[in-house]
Amino acid sequence: MARSPAFLFDLDGTLVDSVYQHVLAWKRALENASIPLSVWRIHRRIGMSGGLFITALARELGCTISDEDLRRIQSDHSQAYAELVAGVRPLPGANALIAYLTDHGIPWAIATSGRRSLTALTLRALDLPPDAPVITRDDVEHAKPDPDLFLAAAARLGMPIGDCLVVGDSVWDILASRRASTLGIGLLSGGYGLEELQSAGAYRVYEDPADLLHHLDEVGVRP
Amino acid sequence: MARSPAFLFDLDGTLVDSVYQHVLAWKRALENASIPLSVWRIHRRIGMSGGLFITALARELGCTISDEDLRRIQSDHSQAYAELVAGVRPLPGANALIAYLTDHGIPWAIATSGRRSLTALTLRALDLPPDAPVITRDDVEHAKPDPDLFLAAAARLGMPIGDCLVVGDSVWDILASRRASTLGIGLLSGGYGLEELQSAGAYRVYEDPADLLHHLDEVGVRP
Repeated sequence: MARSPAFLFDLDGTLVDSVYQHVLAWKRALENASIPLSVWRIHRRIGMSGGLFITALARELGCTISDEDLRRIQSDHSQAYAELVAGVRPLPGANALIAYLTDHGIPWAIATSGRRSLTALTLRALDLPPDAPVITRDDVEHAKPDPDLFLAAAARLGMPIGDCLVVGDSVWDILASRRASTLGIGLLSGGYGLEELQSAGAYRVYEDPADLLHHLDEVGVRP
Repeated sequence: MARSPAFLFDLDGTLVDSVYQHVLAWKRALENASIPLSVWRIHRRIGMSGGLFITALARELGCTISDEDLRRIQSDHSQAYAELVAGVRPLPGANALIAYLTDHGIPWAIATSGRRSLTALTLRALDLPPDAPVITRDDVEHAKPDPDLFLAAAARLGMPIGDCLVVGDSVWDILASRRASTLGIGLLSGGYGLEELQSAGAYRVYEDPADLLHHLDEVGVRP
């Protein structure tokens, strides 16, 4: 990494303050399916593939969930999230960080486990150029913690994955970065604890995009 | 501690799954006061004294908050929480744990940083005897992380504080237990990470009340 690395950003909890809206939306969807799940357990699954989330959950609860139930829960989550998305705000420094990278010719992309339709709603909270490179669940076979989303984002930028830094708030982002053989930077802004992200293998952990912008020199961006 | 210790329980995030409702209620109250605060920062303050929370926040944001603003924010939080409290559920094992202790003559009490009026709403989610010992913010001068609430709860039980275990989900509970010179048991059910509670000095950490009930022998309760 002689020149500046490129940046592959997760979206929810990393650039926008939307994790708790997703938590509530999953809670409603699971209650509709008579699946009582403590909220903290939902929180710790946000950011991973929705299908994996529900499958893992069913295994933990010792029950089976039919394909039809799975589809209905995911559809109920989407509907509930769409009702809550108006309350979603950009995280501090998110727009400034994106603008800084753009102004300095440093490539960046967004790679999210969310579906394209919900992602479009969430992206309204940010000031992005219309041609912003965004990879969603619809573009890959497997979402996080598989590396596909970040690999697709690097390919979209035309960059080797090893020249890209992954930035995410969840353990699933950091695990996916390691599966992709590149470095992951953790942000606390999604509600995970510092040590959880460090234990998952984060190269560095910052509070939020503003804090990362303030310390870009630590991750290889030269002024 | 030759005989079984007594148990001093925090309420929100420890016995009931109400932390995220409090997070949302604070978010609304702060937005009403034009104070934009990321949700994870609110989450990490839940369980500490509401007055301290807002004062600490004002200091971090570099602004001053008048006494009138402080009262309005707290009142807005109470109103918003009251609207959300119908969605609050007991945490897995909470009622079973309380019933086990009661059946075995092991003293227990609840000690919460919440006001008596809001606490009464939250307690409806639990199956408690009408004479359950509950200490609230109204009973002491200083709430957590000061030790007053837990000291008052021990006094209510007529037990030396050193014969009591504190059980809580937040760093503020664990810090208050140490200020009170007794052991604190952390629960993950409020959304903090394992290592955060360990770093704060938790004696042991369990997932939720069900997990604690399953491991009572580890904390000095003999069958």
